[in-house]
Amino acid sequence: MGNKLAAEFFGTFWLVLGGCGSAVLAAAFPEVGIGLLGVSFAFGLTVLTMAYAVGGISGGHFNPAVTLGLAIAGRFEMKSLASYWAAQVAGAIAAAVVLYVIVSGQAGFEGVGGFASNGYGEASPGGYGLFSALVTEIVMTAFFLIIIIGATSPSVPAGFAPIAIGLGLTLIHLVSIPVTNTSVNPARSTGVALFADGPALAQLWLFWVAPLLGAAGGAMCWKLIGGAGKG
Amino acid sequence: MGNKLAAEFFGTFWLVLGGCGSAVLAAAFPEVGIGLLGVSFAFGLTVLTMAYAVGGISGGHFNPAVTLGLAIAGRFEMKSLASYWAAQVAGAIAAAVVLYVIVSGQAGFEGVGGFASNGYGEASPGGYGLFSALVTEIVMTAFFLIIIIGATSPSVPAGFAPIAIGLGLTLIHLVSIPVTNTSVNPARSTGVALFADGPALAQLWLFWVAPLLGAAGGAMCWKLIGGAGKG
Amino acid sequence: MGNKLAAEFFGTFWLVLGGCGSAVLAAAFPEVGIGLLGVSFAFGLTVLTMAYAVGGISGGHFNPAVTLGLAIAGRFEMKSLASYWAAQVAGAIAAAVVLYVIVSGQAGFEGVGGFASNGYGEASPGGYGLFSALVTEIVMTAFFLIIIIGATSPSVPAGFAPIAIGLGLTLIHLVSIPVTNTSVNPARSTGVALFADGPALAQLWLFWVAPLLGAAGGAMCWKLIGGAGKG
Amino acid sequence: MGNKLAAEFFGTFWLVLGGCGSAVLAAAFPEVGIGLLGVSFAFGLTVLTMAYAVGGISGGHFNPAVTLGLAIAGRFEMKSLASYWAAQVAGAIAAAVVLYVIVSGQAGFEGVGGFASNGYGEASPGGYGLFSALVTEIVMTAFFLIIIIGATSPSVPAGFAPIAIGLGLTLIHLVSIPVTNTSVNPARSTGVALFADGPALAQLWLFWVAPLLGAAGGAMCWKLIGGAGKG
Repeated sequence: MGNKLAAEFFGTFWLVLGGCGSAVLAAAFPEVGIGLLGVSFAFGLTVLTMAYAVGGISGGHFNPAVTLGLAIAGRFEMKSLASYWAAQVAGAIAAAVVLYVIVSGQAGFEGVGGFASNGYGEASPGGYGLFSALVTEIVMTAFFLIIIIGATSPSVPAGFAPIAIGLGLTLIHLVSIPVTNTSVNPARSTGVALFADGPALAQLWLFWVAPLLGAAGGAMCWKLIGGAGKG
Repeated sequence: MGNKLAAEFFGTFWLVLGGCGSAVLAAAFPEVGIGLLGVSFAFGLTVLTMAYAVGGISGGHFNPAVTLGLAIAGRFEMKSLASYWAAQVAGAIAAAVVLYVIVSGQAGFEGVGGFASNGYGEASPGGYGLFSALVTEIVMTAFFLIIIIGATSPSVPAGFAPIAIGLGLTLIHLVSIPVTNTSVNPARSTGVALFADGPALAQLWLFWVAPLLGAAGGAMCWKLIGGAGKG
Repeated sequence: MGNKLAAEFFGTFWLVLGGCGSAVLAAAFPEVGIGLLGVSFAFGLTVLTMAYAVGGISGGHFNPAVTLGLAIAGRFEMKSLASYWAAQVAGAIAAAVVLYVIVSGQAGFEGVGGFASNGYGEASPGGYGLFSALVTEIVMTAFFLIIIIGATSPSVPAGFAPIAIGLGLTLIHLVSIPVTNTSVNPARSTGVALFADGPALAQLWLFWVAPLLGAAGGAMCWKLIGGAGKG
Repeated sequence: MGNKLAAEFFGTFWLVLGGCGSAVLAAAFPEVGIGLLGVSFAFGLTVLTMAYAVGGISGGHFNPAVTLGLAIAGRFEMKSLASYWAAQVAGAIAAAVVLYVIVSGQAGFEGVGGFASNGYGEASPGGYGLFSALVTEIVMTAFFLIIIIGATSPSVPAGFAPIAIGLGLTLIHLVSIPVTNTSVNPARSTGVALFADGPALAQLWLFWVAPLLGAAGGAMCWKLIGGAGKG
């Protein structure tokens, strides 16, 4: 079990350092910044890379909502849920610390600002309200789980799941960064919220509630589609 | 059959929510917008991800033109065509509803505008006329079918088809968004046309006729290339 | 043999329509254009998609330099070289015709301009001279052949070659569009040169000589690396 | 052994010509430049392509830090370390020469400037200090090794490692170009430092020390995760 929790710790660390790091450091770099497209690829590639690296050890969740959804779908033992969640949140917080250290070494540093945190209303990048944020996070997480459960079902040849899942997370970011800055992952939201200026901590509840609801819904949609009979 | 139709419903839902959603929400986001490149990746990744997730259930068409082309190529039973089409169009409309709900929650919302609909003439993003639009949609859909039929033929190792097909749709968007906003998929065009301002509904006929013609042509080109002998 | 030539015709058609089409139609689209990055992906994805679709029929060259390099490496019968070249050039010219038809349907059309043709000196996108162009096209084509021969050698698991080769072409474009607009493919250069304004036809010799020299060099480098003993 | 060193020479040559070449030639091209996103893809694709092409010959390191980390992880014989390092540095220098030749052929050429070299403090693209640079290069290289060792472990189906590793390098660049211009590879840093204006040579020590430390740390993290028991 220790190995699995270490894998989840390092995987979630990499998701937050790579994904949020690209947003904080490179998204709006003058003239040649990577933009939301680059941030979307960064988030997706953190999952793609670590799913290949350590997915065989822990399953490669790196996300409390994914762990819940897989438990509901019968792919993960519910009794290990709490320890997985703890490892994921710890990894996310550790990554936020490292990112803070790097960012604070910039000439003229005056604070981390939003620090890639998630939000709605005035904290939404595009000014989307609470209801839009809820719908977006629920639906996006639901499809993330459908992709994860489907791509890891026995009918898909071995080895392709990290591509489908990682690029699925890229796609989710391509759509929803303007609405909530994209969470679909309560650990990712928690790690950076601890350091961010603004209402990130006060709004953190939504980025636990909506992804968890969405993950449960996605697991149920999968059964509706008939995936239950496929493993 | 219910499982297959559910898979087509959810897959086409995801195609429209992810592809059109990225266009409406993120393409022109100030400073860091994903542009046509990001929208092209989004459309392609909707198909890549859902083809891995549910392709084993329904075949993963998510597109009435694809269903027709595969039927002509002998890969799909013509008698199931109508029910597939219905599931696809229903999924596309449902996604347009969800996207409308999200978009309308933006501060200062005043209407959806083009809503990622397809068009020609004054409704073409780059001002291309009817004939350019017809040629583009026919040729692009034809090659989409050649890629789909070829990449799923027995000579290609199992598991790679969703990559070829998804990135094929990305490529098609990289070329043709300026001409017609890229359809190659009558369901995708129908879903958003119901909500869009402008002539989208009046021009919708072209985005049924041209993709269906192109798909039929692509299935025949495949036979010409000699694919018939390969399965 | 007819099947193989049809596959090469359609593959090269798609390479020129997709690659050059993205450059002409979408690269500099106002505000949200795909830029050189999008064009680079488009060229690479034409090869990735058609290599999956018809690579099992013809080998998936779509490029006279690739055909020559593979012949030198002992992977292709030299006696079929001329017919492959003819099919490739015909496909490229046909694609240029279709692209011309599409482009000329734009409101306010006044000519195709450079039409994504290749060039050096004043015709180089970044103003690079003849010698830089020669070095660039030779070295880039040489590595393209090393990638192609290596990725299709028996030691690489089946199915991955189109990814390596297609994204290799993307990489080549990411580097060299500013120098020559990137050829590494005499058929691609020939197709659009017939329609382009400017010195494209007068400079076309370089985009036959340099890619062919580079392809021969790449095939020899492969033997130097020791690939000869690997198949 | 000669074949292996030739493979490392050509692979590192391609990494520097493709990665640094894209940065020097195309990143800031007017209007349509590929930006840091394009440069990130270019670096990653050099490794993806050459790992498929010659990875079966030499292991496909193309990087002294990777060679060290794999030796510490027990995947490579320490006695071959020096010759691999020599081949890698020689390949990087040769690529810098070729890139210099190409660049100097531009109309109005007045010097290579930074030449895609790595740096900290005033030489950091975003003005990040020495400590930020150290932390960034150590952590990024550590995760690069975790990805490499994990993705090449026996539990991952054959053929996917070049995708994970190449796109892992893309991800690393998406995050860290603003900090150090991204090294994680002492050979890459050395090749261009010999030609660059500014403090690149004086700061080169950091881009040997930090990647080597990070690679050693990554190999040890892998054992901590429990990968030791997996091969």
